[in-house]
Amino acid sequence: MSDFKRRIASLFSNASFESALINSYESLRYFSGFKGLGGAFLILSRDGTSKMFVTELEAPDAKEAVYDQLVVVEKTKKFQEEIEKALKSYGERGQIGLEDGSITLSMYEEIKPYVNSWVGISKKISQLRSVKDDDEISLIRNAVKIAEESFLQIKDEIKPGATENHVAAELEKAMKEAGAEGIAFPTIVASGERAANPHAVSTDKKIRDGEVVVVDFGAKYKGYDSDLTRTVFVGDVGDTMRSAFDAVFDTQQTCFKALSLGAKLSDVANLAIKNLAKYKLDKYYTHSLGHGIGLEVHESPYLSTSSQDLLKEGQTFTIEPGVYIEGVGGIRIEDDFLSTKQGVTRLSSLPAKL
Amino acid sequence: MSDFKRRIASLFSNASFESALINSYESLRYFSGFKGLGGAFLILSRDGTSKMFVTELEAPDAKEAVYDQLVVVEKTKKFQEEIEKALKSYGERGQIGLEDGSITLSMYEEIKPYVNSWVGISKKISQLRSVKDDDEISLIRNAVKIAEESFLQIKDEIKPGATENHVAAELEKAMKEAGAEGIAFPTIVASGERAANPHAVSTDKKIRDGEVVVVDFGAKYKGYDSDLTRTVFVGDVGDTMRSAFDAVFDTQQTCFKALSLGAKLSDVANLAIKNLAKYKLDKYYTHSLGHGIGLEVHESPYLSTSSQDLLKEGQTFTIEPGVYIEGVGGIRIEDDFLSTKQGVTRLSSLPAKL
Repeated sequence: MSDFKRRIASLFSNASFESALINSYESLRYFSGFKGLGGAFLILSRDGTSKMFVTELEAPDAKEAVYDQLVVVEKTKKFQEEIEKALKSYGERGQIGLEDGSITLSMYEEIKPYVNSWVGISKKISQLRSVKDDDEISLIRNAVKIAEESFLQIKDEIKPGATENHVAAELEKAMKEAGAEGIAFPTIVASGERAANPHAVSTDKKIRDGEVVVVDFGAKYKGYDSDLTRTVFVGDVGDTMRSAFDAVFDTQQTCFKALSLGAKLSDVANLAIKNLAKYKLDKYYTHSLGHGIGLEVHESPYLSTSSQDLLKEGQTFTIEPGVYIEGVGGIRIEDDFLSTKQGVTRLSSLPAKL
Repeated sequence: MSDFKRRIASLFSNASFESALINSYESLRYFSGFKGLGGAFLILSRDGTSKMFVTELEAPDAKEAVYDQLVVVEKTKKFQEEIEKALKSYGERGQIGLEDGSITLSMYEEIKPYVNSWVGISKKISQLRSVKDDDEISLIRNAVKIAEESFLQIKDEIKPGATENHVAAELEKAMKEAGAEGIAFPTIVASGERAANPHAVSTDKKIRDGEVVVVDFGAKYKGYDSDLTRTVFVGDVGDTMRSAFDAVFDTQQTCFKALSLGAKLSDVANLAIKNLAKYKLDKYYTHSLGHGIGLEVHESPYLSTSSQDLLKEGQTFTIEPGVYIEGVGGIRIEDDFLSTKQGVTRLSSLPAKL
């Protein structure tokens, strides 16, 4: 059982708001364990009590979640009315926190008449969620393990003649059979010149001898995501890609070693650019260095040059430098890490070169 | 090539706004063909011109999309500034349309100072998108075909001893290998008593002899979704489930036959309840009758008792009655349909009983 009470108490600590309307999938799971995809509302209160609202369809999922009171409403229209009533009544106690990062403008327009005074709480929730407790770390460890074992299981499928889609399908199947509740994101398998697009999904293109194959993949385990990338050489990929690989690997190691509790993450992001510049490859590096992983596959903290984050104890995150050369190919190496009192440790254990 | 110009013209037909800020994944794809997951902004204008804003990372995806002008911005911060500048300048021409169903409250707070006068356009876009052109219908037909062929290919895996996760993994792999760019949604495989939860995902529970297995699945093909459900009998499932199956099948057929252009979709939704009542099973039917399918797997039109929609020509949608009995099991049969001048036709061709 996750420590929902402690999480709710942290939300209200030093807060100006007296209650909070929770509606995003991740926050519902974080504060109550609710896993339904169909949507629900959870009202949290400074006194520690919580009240969940769902329609009939989500009642089975709601019954597996944790809260003080459940309101099951028959129809969508009544659902809206119940929320409005609750907002009005909680509003009398003071300011209401709204998930401004997930409430849409049209939803806001609908509830506005019932909300006297509100404050956005998405940033605070994302800060809270960026520091993981032991339960969460253990789930993320499992998500990493599932992804790694699955990759090892299917890596021989990465060969001339196999399509990118085939490799992605085999890998996703392996993760699911290994106990993942799903994939953390659509698997990227980008071969040859396609590897120069860091966001390429998989296609029915066949892998050819002499190509690099970037495989970016992750498993979702009980809500928590892993996120890994390996770049596989199929035959002789040529000097440009070979040197790029070494430069990217060196950059990942350099950034890893530079990290310690309290580190400015923008400094580490800048270090990656500086290190790639040693190899004259910095201009081929177009994305940020890494990001937190948890209930979302991209979350706080952010390892980017514009990040304001300092590394705290209990954060789980990726380090994933890359080099992308149009018309040639691309290299990315991504591992998952955890910051502890004793320093930063690598959660993933796949060798960089496979 | 999809007819983006015509779609943009339809958006501005009878509209009070002079320009529109497009930011949702589906709308970007609908109006420009942009497939990037990382986000972009597209400003459409009544004069037919369009301008796309992306960061460097999305530049490769943007280059495959269709618009008049592309602005590639180096960093996220400058991106925000570019959008603000554009909103200010377009705002001088008159009201701006905002995707109020996808813009978040925090994003709205950020752009608010730069928007003089706005109007929500999500409902209008969803109405436009609910009527498919020939290109879209052909993509949906393909998405249906991939899902059906994949199901037939793996259906022998649905047997005693196989886990739900195994069946889901095999089915998802088959769809991907058959050319799907992904799954339309996480596959539901719910066996035995678990089938009584219409929203159950798959678990590592083993399928046992005498159980019903509800399999709800769909493929995404070039952005467009199919959505099908079959309930498979594993051995002798007993009288309750057998009669429920017949009642659900009869209800689906009855609703299908009752549909014609101009039909009130709430009437058809009520007909489903009435028909299940003949079998005294209406109280076990907890969700709505169906929904449109397209770039989203749930979209307009809606076949529910509170729907305001009338059936128009060129709409693609599901009919999916179900019966869910706690402690026993559940039945759902879902097919995909298309409304044409000649009447409603079934896009899917899998037999109901497999």
